Amino acid sequence: MRDSKTAPLNLPSDLPGEAAGPVSALDRFLLRKILAFTGGVPVTLVLWNGQEIVSGDPRSVARLTIRDRGALWGLCLNPEMNFGDLYSVGRVEVEGDLTRFLETVYTGMTDTPAPGVLRLLRRFLNRPRHNTLEGSREHIHHHYDLGNSFYELWLDREAMQYTCAYYPDAAMTLEQAQRAKMDHVCRKLQLKPGDRVVEAGCGWGGLARHMAKHYGVTVRSYNISHQQIVYAREKAREQGLAGRVEYIEDDYRNLSGTYDVFVSIGMLEHVGRDHYQVLGRVADNCLTEKGRGLIHTIGRNKPELMNAWIEKRIFPGAYPPTLREMMEIFEPSRFSVLDVENIRLHYARTLEQWLERFESHAGEIEKTYDRAFTRAWRLYLAGSIASFTTGSLQLFQVVFARERDNDIPRTREHLYR
Amino acid sequence: MRDSKTAPLNLPSDLPGEAAGPVSALDRFLLRKILAFTGGVPVTLVLWNGQEIVSGDPRSVARLTIRDRGALWGLCLNPEMNFGDLYSVGRVEVEGDLTRFLETVYTGMTDTPAPGVLRLLRRFLNRPRHNTLEGSREHIHHHYDLGNSFYELWLDREAMQYTCAYYPDAAMTLEQAQRAKMDHVCRKLQLKPGDRVVEAGCGWGGLARHMAKHYGVTVRSYNISHQQIVYAREKAREQGLAGRVEYIEDDYRNLSGTYDVFVSIGMLEHVGRDHYQVLGRVADNCLTEKGRGLIHTIGRNKPELMNAWIEKRIFPGAYPPTLREMMEIFEPSRFSVLDVENIRLHYARTLEQWLERFESHAGEIEKTYDRAFTRAWRLYLAGSIASFTTGSLQLFQVVFARERDNDIPRTREHLYR
Repeated sequence: MRDSKTAPLNLPSDLPGEAAGPVSALDRFLLRKILAFTGGVPVTLVLWNGQEIVSGDPRSVARLTIRDRGALWGLCLNPEMNFGDLYSVGRVEVEGDLTRFLETVYTGMTDTPAPGVLRLLRRFLNRPRHNTLEGSREHIHHHYDLGNSFYELWLDREAMQYTCAYYPDAAMTLEQAQRAKMDHVCRKLQLKPGDRVVEAGCGWGGLARHMAKHYGVTVRSYNISHQQIVYAREKAREQGLAGRVEYIEDDYRNLSGTYDVFVSIGMLEHVGRDHYQVLGRVADNCLTEKGRGLIHTIGRNKPELMNAWIEKRIFPGAYPPTLREMMEIFEPSRFSVLDVENIRLHYARTLEQWLERFESHAGEIEKTYDRAFTRAWRLYLAGSIASFTTGSLQLFQVVFARERDNDIPRTREHLYR
Repeated sequence: MRDSKTAPLNLPSDLPGEAAGPVSALDRFLLRKILAFTGGVPVTLVLWNGQEIVSGDPRSVARLTIRDRGALWGLCLNPEMNFGDLYSVGRVEVEGDLTRFLETVYTGMTDTPAPGVLRLLRRFLNRPRHNTLEGSREHIHHHYDLGNSFYELWLDREAMQYTCAYYPDAAMTLEQAQRAKMDHVCRKLQLKPGDRVVEAGCGWGGLARHMAKHYGVTVRSYNISHQQIVYAREKAREQGLAGRVEYIEDDYRNLSGTYDVFVSIGMLEHVGRDHYQVLGRVADNCLTEKGRGLIHTIGRNKPELMNAWIEKRIFPGAYPPTLREMMEIFEPSRFSVLDVENIRLHYARTLEQWLERFESHAGEIEKTYDRAFTRAWRLYLAGSIASFTTGSLQLFQVVFARERDNDIPRTREHLYR
């Protein structure tokens, strides 16, 4: 029905086979291992024969049902990878609050590392893919070309921002918070009329249009997702901005021209560790002597691969960098880092609002794609909330300028007027 | 007269000998090398026989007089180290604006690296010293125990802050800007009455007293400079704060207790690259689960040793880290970096105000110490201005918290109310 490139979810053929039968002593041993692996979190485990195993703690946050022996083995062998696949196809089920359940498990997993041999095996099984020019195109196609109408169901209606919003007021709607994010970024970049802006990775082009409309700048935006570029151009035409915003279907590595401002929101996650120096060189080559730059990215406090299941099924090639790793972008060109802001809890809130809208359209999504796809995306959104609330993921906005530019703003007061 | 430990300036015995005589072809060759080394900056060189060599550029910012052949050789062999010593003893002289002259030379030096062999030789000659527990004590003694009355001549009169001030209003006096810096730090740390604060490196204790007086917290401050501790305790008694501020004459590595807040202003420069993990462990061991931390330090955009002359004559053991290097403090304990602000131009302004006051007391200082000491400190202050205005040095304030603390402030608006 679908070829491997356009399938919305590449479910594997090598999931452990379904097998039920009576619960054995070995099964119970494996269950105890699973509980140990989650750091003894308050979860009730239910087996395929209905038998319940409650963790020591009576405050159970959720019931996890394991529907067959193959699923049990899969969870033990490589939980990070197999939990997602088994959940997607319904061979494990979570009753209760999925996000709270995942927060509990993530916390337990960080505090209780698995034995070394198992960790090595999992690292081998879960190794991520590379972002060559061709690879990047496939990876981005896999995720962003699912169909604009899919994302329209649950992203903000105005600017289709598929990145962390900003909530200076906690009661903001998603639309208000995405606008606030774009304005926060524009203020950090000190946009002034006539500035030439280049954007590396532009999604559906919302930020470029916002900048051109409200700040009087011209923007050239690069993106390798064909469907996003088509959508972005159409919107720019509709809004009479076609002369001031140009969308280019090409890789950031092929970016050319001279600009006053370099901005990249939510692309660095797809760049990969080996290419940070290239990205820095691109920014260095295109920025004027008074140029300003901003990179907005998901990050880590300590180096760690992207969750293996998300890297395989949702975001191929994704890697969230630490600040230390990000410095490979800035150091070789002697860029001066002026400002770093970490707004991870804003991403948790953004994801909550996305998940709410996603759930309100779940039936529709299931009809268009299928049940496994819908469950996988539910898990991905809920898991991402949990990653931000437990601090496993961060959200960094890094502002930089030339080392010798003495016209940089003296304080950050202008961001909060 | 003075033993080597208390001498305010350890001038070397191995400076090239004075020798004048007629100017030879070799002398002229060396002069051209010096001009090339400074990247062809607009400087007029004057030799001991009065002969002038003007660089190609007619906009000469200063006249540099070289009084003997030994000085000429010294400048060629190892300018970073020897310029300072030769200037201190008056064997080279700068007429014109010393700061502008140094800015020009620093810019030229960065853009025109010396040949590889010479760089290797200089790296060997200029290698910095280590900060063992005993070494640190000597290094700090060398700089900070020059006598409180010396620093009182040119630091702010209220809090004796020997670190970068903060000028939200460019017209602020030094006293106002140092108060603004302390308040900026306190707001970043979200101090509230009753908080227990620990400070690693406290100078003359001004920040600790400011915190206790204006924010209702208790502070325990560590410092290994005996004279500073004596001064700090005396001031706390005078101001009736002795019960709420405790000054401990000990190394940050021996810090003990549990605190809500960890702060360190201008100490990291003295810690040295090998000890960042230890500092991180100290912060980790002493902070509560809701603890906040702030480190304020001179830094670099790219790894580079401290200017050799300053490291040898003024600040033994000093090293300004890059942000990448600083992450060694935070990563092992999974601290979350929440906010980084770079206020390098505020340090240039601070140093300008210090230099102005220093100059107004230069006669007095020369009488107490000697002419070489006075000239050395003038050069150090002017050179530091130049380092900050040319972007060779940065000033980072880094705020951090526990990875799982979700009570962190959502925005930075509270800093600017």
